[in-house]
Amino acid sequence: MNALIFDGQLRFTDDYPYPKRLPGEALIQPRLVGICNTDIEITHGYMGFQGVLGHEFVGTVQECDDPAWLHRRVVGEINAACLQCPTCLRGDSPHCPNRTTLGIDRRDGVMAEAFVLPVTCLHAVPDAVLDEAAVFVEPLAAALEIVDQNHVQPTERVVIIGDGKLGAMIVQVLRLTGCDVTLIGRHPERWALFQQQGIRCVHTSEAPNTQFDFVVECTGQPGGLDMARRLVRPRGRLVLKSTFHGTASLNLSMVVVDEVQLIGSRCGSFAPALRLLERGLIETEALISGHFALYDGCAAFDAARGRLKILLHPN
Amino acid sequence: MNALIFDGQLRFTDDYPYPKRLPGEALIQPRLVGICNTDIEITHGYMGFQGVLGHEFVGTVQECDDPAWLHRRVVGEINAACLQCPTCLRGDSPHCPNRTTLGIDRRDGVMAEAFVLPVTCLHAVPDAVLDEAAVFVEPLAAALEIVDQNHVQPTERVVIIGDGKLGAMIVQVLRLTGCDVTLIGRHPERWALFQQQGIRCVHTSEAPNTQFDFVVECTGQPGGLDMARRLVRPRGRLVLKSTFHGTASLNLSMVVVDEVQLIGSRCGSFAPALRLLERGLIETEALISGHFALYDGCAAFDAARGRLKILLHPN
Repeated sequence: MNALIFDGQLRFTDDYPYPKRLPGEALIQPRLVGICNTDIEITHGYMGFQGVLGHEFVGTVQECDDPAWLHRRVVGEINAACLQCPTCLRGDSPHCPNRTTLGIDRRDGVMAEAFVLPVTCLHAVPDAVLDEAAVFVEPLAAALEIVDQNHVQPTERVVIIGDGKLGAMIVQVLRLTGCDVTLIGRHPERWALFQQQGIRCVHTSEAPNTQFDFVVECTGQPGGLDMARRLVRPRGRLVLKSTFHGTASLNLSMVVVDEVQLIGSRCGSFAPALRLLERGLIETEALISGHFALYDGCAAFDAARGRLKILLHPN
Repeated sequence: MNALIFDGQLRFTDDYPYPKRLPGEALIQPRLVGICNTDIEITHGYMGFQGVLGHEFVGTVQECDDPAWLHRRVVGEINAACLQCPTCLRGDSPHCPNRTTLGIDRRDGVMAEAFVLPVTCLHAVPDAVLDEAAVFVEPLAAALEIVDQNHVQPTERVVIIGDGKLGAMIVQVLRLTGCDVTLIGRHPERWALFQQQGIRCVHTSEAPNTQFDFVVECTGQPGGLDMARRLVRPRGRLVLKSTFHGTASLNLSMVVVDEVQLIGSRCGSFAPALRLLERGLIETEALISGHFALYDGCAAFDAARGRLKILLHPN
């Protein structure tokens, strides 16, 4: 079948083996797929992953043991957990030590004609949510994870560092709390939407010298972390959203002296993300920078580096 | 006057200028002084401090504007805040950006015949608390800061990494929560007290390969941080108690993927520390490794490196 794979280099192939569906899994035909910075990081060696890339999708169930799911339009959580270990039994399946992760860790991803995922990962997409919005559920859930982990008070001063793909979701989630939101980034050409939404946008080169109660770092760059550290007030919270290849340095003595909290934050729950999209509270259309066919995947990845969301059409 | 100072090297002097008391300050004669690892770090360049060392004390007020404090036995919080800036007005004077810190930052410390400290920092010592216990109030308050910042549930599994001066306070505070407590350290000769208190003690070389809900790092060594990171479960909390000179490296991508919380933790409130001592819930006598006169301060610092609490007698 057609697939966009990474095997040391990113390439399109038309003879990748068709996925074998195991009991409990659904075979899914993707309708639309998004390119995430994690996909780009993988092509730089992150996680040592090889195989079919991609984890952001909206698709149609083609085969499944449970007929209730057949032909339904779905999105899917990306961590396939064992549901049997102590971590899963504690209710924390996203951190199952035995998990595979769609297009990231020992499980082929969605940039192909078809892929498989456990039915327990699936969520039906409400009719009111178009494919072009549903494909944002995964990064929107990751943004919502911040407010699932943290009580962000409406009176707090919040800054998001990074106006990229994930930052665009995070600012929109945090504005819903009523808090004062500033976005710091390097791409003024992306800010019109956020400014309309009442978000203060500031260029990295003009970062404020005040401090904030709650800071989110989503640049994926070590420099972003340095700025985040400077902008968080004593006893403030700094959410780390970037995964990147390698080890970052941080002056941990200053973290201790200022009693800052660093909060690692990753994937989130899909149900609230679907609710926000259905309620029309999150803008996605303006974030789409381009559409590409699957066979043009290398060009799509090149385009994704400098822009917001690039969508692939695998079928 | 006699003083133990650091001016590029640690040395005793008998001609240090007598402190000048400002309005709002008390002139205090220390009765007993403790040596802390931060004092030792300062002699390695931490904070770039020069002057009289020391911040752990119990003393007697000799001069003061308010006669109510005169001749009282006191301990004192070490951060002298401005009480006027936005941070102070928010109720967070320990993080006042204009603060000086006793024996650590632009304020002469307590290893001298006398020193000054704002009256707002003082706490009267109850009669039931002997000098040899009261001198532990500052590190005990720093240990209590952990449970002031964090709700440690009695059902959680807790590990403290570091069986040094501060670790000895932290294990005793955390055992009071009812949680399961493990202490990991390199000094089995210190463990008798903790084992009597129901704390599991394990040598660093035999660290468990299970994970914990709540991890406290108080070794002051980069290796301790690596172990702490390994021992904290996904979504678990890691409290950083060590201040040390320099920048530590940490794989922050793993912090993100495991959604760990890193919580910097420093000084704490004295009132609960005094209450616990008065109630006899914290053992201090067994933690005293030696007594030295002030003029023998260099030998006291040498002794403090390999042992628990060394006390100095400045007067």
